[in-house]
Amino acid sequence: MLTFKSNKSCVSDEQFSNIWPEVLKAHGELENQTGKGSEFTGWLKIPHAIVSNELEGIHEAASRIKKQSKVLLVIGIGGSYLGSLAALDALQNNYSQFRTVTNEGVEVLFAGHTLSSAYHQKLYSYLENKDFSINVISKSGTTTEPAIAFRLFKSLLEKKYSEEEVKTRIYATTDGHKGALKQLSLHKGYTTFTIPDDIGGRFSVLTAVGLLPLAAGGIDIDSLLKGAADGAELYASPTQDNPCYRYAAYRNSLYRSGKAIEILVNYEPSLNPTSEWWKQLYGESEGKDGLGIFPTSMSFSTDLHSLGQYVQDGVRHLFETVLTIKADKTPLTLFSQADDLDQLNYLEGMTLEQVNAEANRGTQLAHMDGGVPILEIELAEMTPYTYGLMLYFFMKACGISGYMLGVNPFDQPGVEAYKKNMFALLGKEGYESLRKELLARL
Amino acid sequence: MLTFKSNKSCVSDEQFSNIWPEVLKAHGELENQTGKGSEFTGWLKIPHAIVSNELEGIHEAASRIKKQSKVLLVIGIGGSYLGSLAALDALQNNYSQFRTVTNEGVEVLFAGHTLSSAYHQKLYSYLENKDFSINVISKSGTTTEPAIAFRLFKSLLEKKYSEEEVKTRIYATTDGHKGALKQLSLHKGYTTFTIPDDIGGRFSVLTAVGLLPLAAGGIDIDSLLKGAADGAELYASPTQDNPCYRYAAYRNSLYRSGKAIEILVNYEPSLNPTSEWWKQLYGESEGKDGLGIFPTSMSFSTDLHSLGQYVQDGVRHLFETVLTIKADKTPLTLFSQADDLDQLNYLEGMTLEQVNAEANRGTQLAHMDGGVPILEIELAEMTPYTYGLMLYFFMKACGISGYMLGVNPFDQPGVEAYKKNMFALLGKEGYESLRKELLARL
Repeated sequence: MLTFKSNKSCVSDEQFSNIWPEVLKAHGELENQTGKGSEFTGWLKIPHAIVSNELEGIHEAASRIKKQSKVLLVIGIGGSYLGSLAALDALQNNYSQFRTVTNEGVEVLFAGHTLSSAYHQKLYSYLENKDFSINVISKSGTTTEPAIAFRLFKSLLEKKYSEEEVKTRIYATTDGHKGALKQLSLHKGYTTFTIPDDIGGRFSVLTAVGLLPLAAGGIDIDSLLKGAADGAELYASPTQDNPCYRYAAYRNSLYRSGKAIEILVNYEPSLNPTSEWWKQLYGESEGKDGLGIFPTSMSFSTDLHSLGQYVQDGVRHLFETVLTIKADKTPLTLFSQADDLDQLNYLEGMTLEQVNAEANRGTQLAHMDGGVPILEIELAEMTPYTYGLMLYFFMKACGISGYMLGVNPFDQPGVEAYKKNMFALLGKEGYESLRKELLARL
Repeated sequence: MLTFKSNKSCVSDEQFSNIWPEVLKAHGELENQTGKGSEFTGWLKIPHAIVSNELEGIHEAASRIKKQSKVLLVIGIGGSYLGSLAALDALQNNYSQFRTVTNEGVEVLFAGHTLSSAYHQKLYSYLENKDFSINVISKSGTTTEPAIAFRLFKSLLEKKYSEEEVKTRIYATTDGHKGALKQLSLHKGYTTFTIPDDIGGRFSVLTAVGLLPLAAGGIDIDSLLKGAADGAELYASPTQDNPCYRYAAYRNSLYRSGKAIEILVNYEPSLNPTSEWWKQLYGESEGKDGLGIFPTSMSFSTDLHSLGQYVQDGVRHLFETVLTIKADKTPLTLFSQADDLDQLNYLEGMTLEQVNAEANRGTQLAHMDGGVPILEIELAEMTPYTYGLMLYFFMKACGISGYMLGVNPFDQPGVEAYKKNMFALLGKEGYESLRKELLARL
């Protein structure tokens, strides 16, 4: 269902053989919990672990949300929303220009990931006349962005519904024991779900963090988990035919040969949020200690008429990883017309997906001729099962790849720097001396 | 209304002095039409030129569209849609998660920029029950993506309306004399607007290409043009206080000191399509001959919880250009609540925009401490006038910057490579020998 492709012009057999021992070492560190940050590798087992824990509660909550609401507002930032947004858009073919709601679930909207005033006000107006529920997702409950959004939209719930009803409309996904949101939830009686202590945000899509919004949105999360569980088995063995380990090996080999930028390419714009999820996963895991491939993304053929020129012919410091979906879920057959001024009649009888597939093949050849190494990850079809498999593929490859790079792929120390400065500039208690220091610099 | 800021830790006075003569040389080449590609620099004069030409017709067409339709479908790829999408979203605060329509204009949707089958089918269903008009934008009329979309949605118009009415609902922006779309328009009697011969797609937002969709969408295009016209005067002089020329000088200086990636940063996600427009402008103008800064973009604080870790602490091959909007159009005041579990009461009475502004200041300091050079372009407010000014700022700086780099900033030879291969693989007449060659490689 998932195939990893590459060609020898990217990475030679010799380069691959040279780097393979490092894959084995990384495999050992990850499996034996001896690598850096091993206390955050709970995601390795999650497709199995989640079943016995919270899955039933998630299904029940999703049913309740579908009965009581038209919209689920998910409040979270970073790993607390990117995974569910990515999977929803990929599996329901949502596009930034216009979104549709399926019969199987509620509309899922997101807040808590931006400080934009206009965004909050537009969303507030939109929700004023709609029945909605909130899933607030935060380990601590004190992260500024989601905490502000939660205050605002909780106040809207309180305006619309009785105190008793409000508490049935709020679902908190948070720490199992401590923290502001856990405390509040216990006090108010919200339904809660747990963010496990051994799983960081960007690896949490297969926990309640991702699963509750997805289930409410109408995604078959059991199939998603089955795909991920099968991925855990498929990508377990330290053998050279393991596509997940090959991907980790190839990208590290390319990085060492001077390829500083990896472009995740799709030919289907509803995969754009999947690229955003992937960018957090790799950028936050590897971008530290002055190291790491810079992860970015493009959607072709759209961006072939934008950054395509650069990819074809600019600085040769980049490579592509193309995410291809093979099967045609929604065929649309092209037709001829009486006049052929636009010269398209030769496409008569082909489906649009076939044209898109040839654009993909033609572009790969053109970019290879331009000196761009190309890796390809092909999914046989886009279903919850294959999507779950792909999520596990990318997470496992990321763990291996980060260890090969020599960093701790499971921490994110650099995220604290802006927060501290922001607290100081806003005048938060405890940051007085930093405040003085920063104001002197401004 | 537009301020360019930077600090000496990015580019020293000496570095600036060293590179300044190249700015002067580029200025001369651009102004005297002696540089590479000077036959495509008509955009330099466009804010003035458009007034006498087509502006009245654009206003009339926009009024007609607003009377006859609820939706304007803009069909185009690359420069034919990025500018109008960017300006619409920035000026109306549209977000990818949900979009709103103002009273001043129709809903503007886009097609012709993707080969996704699902996208076309969802859009088709959406338009089936709505009165809509089409603005098809293509110099030749034979570019595959827009030509396919135009066939499909023209057929929907033909299903919904009489032949006589269909022709009043189609507006073609195309070559002034030749080409398939011009020919068809003359034959059918569509209203047409001209893509000037001396202006390439990525520099065309201030021609009918951008102006008609914007006017129909309810944007004050007269103010937009006034801003651009004032920009043409403000950014004309080859003096060191010209912010536009300073930007070109700084980014080239940073590029030469090893900064390979420029990140356009916003703190307001409705500017994300503006970043896409900017990426095409700079990537397609400079990414050639093995040269050029790789342009990418992020929206903070959203992406501080994603690629922020990399920016703070990854490979030091990047710099930021922060696009800041100073004035608070839509203040939203934060309030205290009885319990302060989330520790936000200290923000009581501040507006959300103030918090966002401190996130911006705090982040700039944190990233500077992490060794990231930061440039800043600050707009006093977000209006059609300032937006027009900014568009001209970026276009003029791009022309100067491209000449400093030594490339022709006005061609895009690399875009042809994928097209040829795609035609060959699809079996288009005239590509038989390339087809054989490519199939042998696959």
